[in-house]
Formats: sequence, C-alpha cells, structure tokens
Amino acid sequence: MDLTSLPGFRDFYPEQMALRDHVFTVWREVAGRYGFVEYDGPPLEPLDLYVRKSGEEIVGQLYRFTDQGGREVALRPEMTPSFARMVGARAGGMPKPIRWYSIPQLFRYERPQKGRLREHFQLNLDIVGEAGELSDAEIIAAAIDMLRAFGLSSEEFVARISDRELIGGLLAAHGVAPEAMGAAFAALDKLDRESPEWVCGRLEEAGVSERSARELLGIPELDLPALLGRVGDDPATLEAGERLRRVFDHLESFGLGAFVRFDPSLVRGLAYYTGTVFELWDRRGEFRAICGGGRYDRLLAAVGGPDLPALGFGMGDVVLSELLKARGLVPEQPAAIQDFVICVTDEQRPAALGVVHALRDRGRRVAYDFAGRSVGRQFKAANQVGAERTIVLGPDELSRGEAVVREMSTGEEKSVPLGSILSD
Amino acid sequence: MDLTSLPGFRDFYPEQMALRDHVFTVWREVAGRYGFVEYDGPPLEPLDLYVRKSGEEIVGQLYRFTDQGGREVALRPEMTPSFARMVGARAGGMPKPIRWYSIPQLFRYERPQKGRLREHFQLNLDIVGEAGELSDAEIIAAAIDMLRAFGLSSEEFVARISDRELIGGLLAAHGVAPEAMGAAFAALDKLDRESPEWVCGRLEEAGVSERSARELLGIPELDLPALLGRVGDDPATLEAGERLRRVFDHLESFGLGAFVRFDPSLVRGLAYYTGTVFELWDRRGEFRAICGGGRYDRLLAAVGGPDLPALGFGMGDVVLSELLKARGLVPEQPAAIQDFVICVTDEQRPAALGVVHALRDRGRRVAYDFAGRSVGRQFKAANQVGAERTIVLGPDELSRGEAVVREMSTGEEKSVPLGSILSD
Repeated sequence: MDLTSLPGFRDFYPEQMALRDHVFTVWREVAGRYGFVEYDGPPLEPLDLYVRKSGEEIVGQLYRFTDQGGREVALRPEMTPSFARMVGARAGGMPKPIRWYSIPQLFRYERPQKGRLREHFQLNLDIVGEAGELSDAEIIAAAIDMLRAFGLSSEEFVARISDRELIGGLLAAHGVAPEAMGAAFAALDKLDRESPEWVCGRLEEAGVSERSARELLGIPELDLPALLGRVGDDPATLEAGERLRRVFDHLESFGLGAFVRFDPSLVRGLAYYTGTVFELWDRRGEFRAICGGGRYDRLLAAVGGPDLPALGFGMGDVVLSELLKARGLVPEQPAAIQDFVICVTDEQRPAALGVVHALRDRGRRVAYDFAGRSVGRQFKAANQVGAERTIVLGPDELSRGEAVVREMSTGEEKSVPLGSILSD
Repeated sequence: MDLTSLPGFRDFYPEQMALRDHVFTVWREVAGRYGFVEYDGPPLEPLDLYVRKSGEEIVGQLYRFTDQGGREVALRPEMTPSFARMVGARAGGMPKPIRWYSIPQLFRYERPQKGRLREHFQLNLDIVGEAGELSDAEIIAAAIDMLRAFGLSSEEFVARISDRELIGGLLAAHGVAPEAMGAAFAALDKLDRESPEWVCGRLEEAGVSERSARELLGIPELDLPALLGRVGDDPATLEAGERLRRVFDHLESFGLGAFVRFDPSLVRGLAYYTGTVFELWDRRGEFRAICGGGRYDRLLAAVGGPDLPALGFGMGDVVLSELLKARGLVPEQPAAIQDFVICVTDEQRPAALGVVHALRDRGRRVAYDFAGRSVGRQFKAANQVGAERTIVLGPDELSRGEAVVREMSTGEEKSVPLGSILSD
C-alpha cells in the first residue's frame, strides 16, 4: 500500500479509538453533572467567520479553499465563532446562564510536534449570560473535575489561576500605558522561556522604567495579598483582586483547594480574555498545558454574536491522552466478545443462530464460526477473540433442549437448559 | 448576526444533538452485540485515495483543494478507501474475520435536498476475511437489528435482498455480453423510476433481444425459485442462487424472516459489489433507502488494500433521523438538571457549594444560582431548568445538619439529614 494518511492526521485503530471513546465518555459524564448540554457545528464554515475574530494573520494556519460554489471556506480551527453564531441565534429565548459544551475536531496547518497535530478533538465548555465570579469558580471546578474523573489527583496536576484585569492594573501601576498593554502581557507570558534581560527589554519598550521592570520580574513569586499591595489604588484593579479572592474561596468551598494556585505570571496568549484566566498543568511539567480558559465578556459581541458575558475552557485530546498513558490511567478494554456459540455439527446451525440472535437481543456481545470448522478450531477461535464463555450445541444436548456452557477463564463446564441461558 | 453556516451543513443545537447522540448510541450498542469494534480515520485525506477507487468523475463532487504544503487533498466523501488503507496495514496480524465499524462524517458537494445534505454521518460496518454466506446473513441481520433497536418493526421496514452474480447470470442468459453488463444493470436499476419502454430500449442497446428485454421487465415479480428457472445452466449462476437461498435460510434461523424479501430488481448503483446486495426501506415508501450494502470481494485489493473478501453496509443519519421523527420514535430527553441547590441567605453558600460538589461527585446532575437571588427566584430558576428536586439550605436546618428536599413534580417537601442526601 503506497498511500498513507496526511502528516499530522491520525488513524484511530480500535485500541486508539477505545481511548478516544474513554476520553469523550468521561468529558460527557462530567459535563452532564455540571448541567451542560452538548451541541455541535459544521467542521466547514465560511472563512469570514474566522477572519472576523482573529484577523487575517490566522489565515496562514487555516485549511482554507474556495468551494465549487465559489464560497471562501475553511475547516474550523476553533469552536468559538460557530458557538457565538449558534448561541446568538437562540440566546434571546433561553434562560440564563446558558451551559453548552461540544467536542469538535479542529484543524490547523502547523508543524506537527509532540502534543500538537494538524487535527485534534477539543472539549469546549462555556457558560453564557453570567457575570458573577461564582461562575468563574464553577468553570474551573468543572475543568478540575474532568481530570479527577480520569483518576488524576491533586499531586499530579494543578490549576494555575490569575485575572487579566488584575495583572493589567499591576502593569498600569508600573507605568504601562493602555496601548502598550498587549506587548507587556506578551513579555510576561515569556517569563518561563526567555531570559530576565529579554523580558525587561520588552517591558521597557512598553514604557516600564528599568526599576519597575526588575520589580515585575518577581511577580511569579507573589501570593495574592502581596500582589494586591503593589497594584496601587485603582478601584477596578482592587475589585478584580477581591473578585479573584472570592473565586479561590468558592473553589475551597467546593473542596478543591488542593488543586488550585494563584499564578500571576499566567496571562494566556489570547487577547480576548477580560477577567479570570486559568490553565491546568501536570505538576511534573512533562507536558504542555492540559486545558486553558477564562472569562471573555466582550468576545461574543465582537464576532457578531450576542452581547453577553461569557467564560469557558478548551481541553484537547492529544496532551490529555499522552498524560493518561504516561500515568497508567488508560482503562483496560472489556472483551469484544462475551459469548461464542459453537456447533458440534452443521445440523445444529439453525438452532445455534436462534440462540445467537436471542443472546444479542438481550444485549450480549456474541460471535460464532462462519465457516463450519471443527469443534476444536471453533474453541480456538473463541479463545482468539477473548470470549468469556462458550455455548456448545451438540446433537444430544440439543435434543434435550440443553447446551454445554464453558467459562473460558476457569474451564468449568456444565450442561444447562437453553431457556436459562436466554434468561439469566 | 449576518453570518450563516454553509448550505447543506447542519448546526446541531442541543435537542438535535440529543437525537444524533441517540442514533450513535444505538448504532454502537448493536454493533457491539455483533462483536464489532470501532475505528476512525482522518476526515481529510490525499485526493488520490478517492480518485484511485472511483476515477476522475468523483472529483466533481469532492470538497478538494491544495493544502499549504502543496498536497492535493479532499474531505472524505466515503469511508471505504480509508478503511482499506487501515485494514491493509494490519490485516496480516489479525484473526479473521475482522469486524470493524465507524461513524464518520462524510462530505459531498451535491445539491442539498430532502434526505441529502453536503455532510452526513454514516455508520460503516464491515466484515473482512470471510467468504461464506453466513457472513452475508450476519451483516444483513446486523442492519435489521439496528432498526429494530430504534423501535421499528417488520411492519415498518423491509430488507430487500438480491445477488449481483445471480442477476448477472440471468442477464447473460438473456444475451447480455460481459462488456454490456454494467449498462444492463444500470437499466434494471431504473425500473421503478423509468417507463418500461425506456428500460427495454437500454437493455436492447446492451445486446438483449426485444423478447428477452420484455421478459426481463417482469423480474421484480419473480420469487427466487421462479427466477432460478430462468437463469439457464451456468454453474456459477446456479451456485449464486443456492447461496442466496442459504442466506435467506440463515436469516430465518435468526428469527428475522418477517424483515426480508427477495427483490431481483435491486442491483444497487455501485459497480464494486460481487455477490449479495441489500437495502433497507420503510414500507410506506416515504423515504430514500435507509441503508445499503453487500459483498465486495475484490474492492479492497483494487483500492490498494489487502486481497481479502469483504462485505458491509452504510447507514446514514439523515434519512434515519427523519424516519424516527416521522414515526414518533425520538426518545424524550432526561432533564439536564436533577438537583437544584438553593441558599436561603448568602451565609449558606460555602456549605451549599460543598453539597453541590459532593452530589456531582456521586454522578448527580446539579445546578444552583450564581447570583445570590431570592429564594423565590431560585425556585423559579429550578423550575425553568426542569430540576427533579430542590435541596434548600437555610440557617436553621443547616445548624441541625439538615436540608429541605422538595420533589418538584409533587411539591412534596421534607427535612432530611445532609448525610442522607449524599448517600442515598
């Protein structure tokens, strides 16, 4: 076979599909406990939907083309624009807050590397129509509970939490003008990857004095009270700090205090966050962020959706699946076959097919031999597919309305009435 | 909002998503009973993968483009080529028969119309590595059981079954040369839509005498024995007839005799079928075929996959969902919220959040008010989201370690210890 799949695209063989199914099942289960309902949009959308949100620069990473009707279209690189359109069409008639989630497959033309492919599935979970900080705690708790439901403990991961408005106030108090705020955030975001000198240089370009820039280098070490002592007296900034404190209080009330940490160096790259931001990281630091999100109160209106406060997060399947594999948290699969029905001679076949079908109707996973092979080879086939038990139909047993049931793990055999097989 | 989705593409709002989820769940459940395991491939593939199977003419219906790396690519219009590639890479090491299924989203640029969009989801269920006709019966039984599991009875749908080799032998006996066989099949396929004169004309063009053509017009009325009397004495054709008879016998043994019918006018459009072909139709004839499939013993090798016999079917979500809606078989949704936790004053909030989280940890679907509203408005919100019960935390009850639980359907209220709420 000389054709392969495209680079950065995955074939899901049954064992990989089972892991994907496990991830989706847990996501859906936890989203359900939080009262979220699932939606989906098209994987192909008008190109404008994405250009409008992210500007022309995103076009370089899009799978885009002109369709046969002359429309400029793109494979979805993210869910938020479709979400904004859909929620916008319905928001008026729906009780708030709206709690929706989706598990879209997303596409970006990037260089494939560890934890990053050209397609991935991403849980998107959002609350629309609620400005109070209890919803910020709710969304962070939902993200944490997702990982807990996979079997990860507070020793294995942490939610790093900050607030963009608070950090913005801190930067303003250190001399960053509104128009330089984006550059200053971008500089802070590089603190863990670039040298202190490099970050200082960028902050100074954003209007920060050398002394203030040096001071800002120390912010990752600050706790929330210490940081609040340095933000000056701007009321909005102080309120942002209070709000963040209450978010932590609520997370404590949820019993999730061990999973969270204030991290003022967390700003997240995306410009549209307006308040709380957070990311989940494995504590050993072996992987990229597992999940990221926050509050984006102005984004829905900006992309043509409803003017409603909103917040949410995205959690991809690639990093998460790698983490589950590394931590031994991929569950074992149940056997594909429970019952294997065996005919001693071809004469039992009609009865055997009746038994097969009756067992399936009762929800059992059943197989049998298609080819009229010997009893020995049928047992071998039953073993090969991992059947839990065999049900052997021979002429004598069948004439008495019985079959021989063998538990494959123990080898224990007994003759039982067919009726009991079909009703136990 | 001035942006809409592309024509022929669906937004799945939560209620539509619930139906899609129901369809997928039943498909997966029944596929599991038959011992099938799930796989998936990429939605974007090299263009050649499809051109190789179907020739250049399919390109006109493809969503195709050149990606940023200069590769000719296409959104998958069908699953078989990806399936052939994947099964080909593994077939050598796997016990036969291989039983795989998938639920890909497929894309074709066609004029959107009733039951046909530009995207749809299609269950693909295939057996590879088995030539015996018992597997033909198995695959047809699986398709029938899918519809049974949705609540459809033998009064509502039927499996029309034929065999391409048998009908090919019948046509050959009526003077159709091998090179004209495709045209003759295509003519027969039009019997239910075109006039007898038109069909006769096409058959005569394919080398059939006028008398034989008239005779062939009557074949939809023939039962299997009558048809076998007209196929001449070609051994392969007679064996194809015997094989088909055994397929019907096996379906009878499964207890599915009421769901099947021999239909010699069924040829199916696709040229790659080599034996059994079948389609499921609603008996009232209000919809397109719900499902179609058959045996394609030479296709996998032809598209570059393994040289193994194979058979399977496809069942799309669009026609099936329309049929379920028309027959009142869309199940009611469970309430998104089971428990709504209410605080009488803000002071109960920390305790309430603990109760909320403990209930969620036990798998309950729980919501509460984010905004500190009055008890009356909290009850109203609980009603709005369809909560099954409310759990009210007031200062007096909480000081006794209790809460007031109200069943929303009956209005019945009682004070209960918090411990019992968290362990019942």
